[in-house]
Amino acid sequence: MSTIKEILEPNRVKSLIHEGGVKTIPVGVSARHVHLSPEHVEVLFGTGYQLQIHKLLSQPGQFAAKETVMLAGPKGVIDKVRILGPARGKTQVEVSLTDAHRLGVSPPVRDSGDLAGSSPITLVGPNGSIYLHEGLIIASRHIHMSQEDALDFQVDDGDNVFVICQSERQIIFSNVKIRVSPNYRLEFHIDTDEANAAKLTNDDNVVILKTT
Amino acid sequence: MSTIKEILEPNRVKSLIHEGGVKTIPVGVSARHVHLSPEHVEVLFGTGYQLQIHKLLSQPGQFAAKETVMLAGPKGVIDKVRILGPARGKTQVEVSLTDAHRLGVSPPVRDSGDLAGSSPITLVGPNGSIYLHEGLIIASRHIHMSQEDALDFQVDDGDNVFVICQSERQIIFSNVKIRVSPNYRLEFHIDTDEANAAKLTNDDNVVILKTT
Repeated sequence: MSTIKEILEPNRVKSLIHEGGVKTIPVGVSARHVHLSPEHVEVLFGTGYQLQIHKLLSQPGQFAAKETVMLAGPKGVIDKVRILGPARGKTQVEVSLTDAHRLGVSPPVRDSGDLAGSSPITLVGPNGSIYLHEGLIIASRHIHMSQEDALDFQVDDGDNVFVICQSERQIIFSNVKIRVSPNYRLEFHIDTDEANAAKLTNDDNVVILKTT
Repeated sequence: MSTIKEILEPNRVKSLIHEGGVKTIPVGVSARHVHLSPEHVEVLFGTGYQLQIHKLLSQPGQFAAKETVMLAGPKGVIDKVRILGPARGKTQVEVSLTDAHRLGVSPPVRDSGDLAGSSPITLVGPNGSIYLHEGLIIASRHIHMSQEDALDFQVDDGDNVFVICQSERQIIFSNVKIRVSPNYRLEFHIDTDEANAAKLTNDDNVVILKTT
């Protein structure tokens, strides 16, 4: 954990990282993607269909599926949007604000799973399409960590922290929520707009600043 | 000018803004655009061609032209990119990092006018096209202000400040350069990636924090 003084001395934070004096957090950039309920997998891909693993993700048990869908909004479509597996309770679509402008929709910025009153969107698959009355969100940035990491960082599940990026386009993200679970691997999740604004990629690391 | 304590108390800054206790700066979001040299206007649009005014911009004397060009990179094209007038010394193309990925190019983040060693890009107009050997950049965020504003804010041309956004996706931008000129109107210029990451639009206002 760094101090308020360090936040204002970017080069000092950078040298601390290089010296190993600050525990850093790897960046995970989330491109637009879809989580499907088991029912919606069948509507889009056919009765009894099972999602196929394309690539395992850094969070344990999660995978990018071989399958993609098309998103359709009132102003445009986005093709080949990756489905993340395994299938889970409720269908949820996560896009960036740039994507939302292209689709012509205004989804709220929400934590994953908080879908009440979120935006409608149409999903088109090879076997059928779905008009989702709600489920489209822009994901709130957050940090996944294990209980051991939470002890190291002296934070609790639900805490908000500042995240400091030492990239060419330095940004400090406020109100970044800590999410703790034994299943989580340490990672700072942002969307493509946030990654591009801060010029961050999956190769980068960030540091956090606790304000209380 | 707000204090370090306030940066860490977002609601306090918000209430200060509402009470008029902090001088705020209007946001100006720059979409991708092109500045053309007088010679390049003629190559793209024809001998003796003059750019036509589509809309005056907030910075005095600047305008969005009626004319647009297509940008072409090794991976894709972007059509209908607005030209800003009047024509000036050197041709300069400003895109977001999202645009750069689409075009398949890797422009540096630069101040306007600092083009040495920047990226090549192809411009296609109705009368011809140009292969620009350098001139493509991602613009560094910056604040335009008059000398009177600089006195108010107690900053000088070339100073770097923090910019604090009180939007739904609160971000603190580091290393934002102050640019002072009698011709400038007070405005915080960011590109579309930065605007989308912070959920800022031209209707929003930000505050600055000086660190020295």
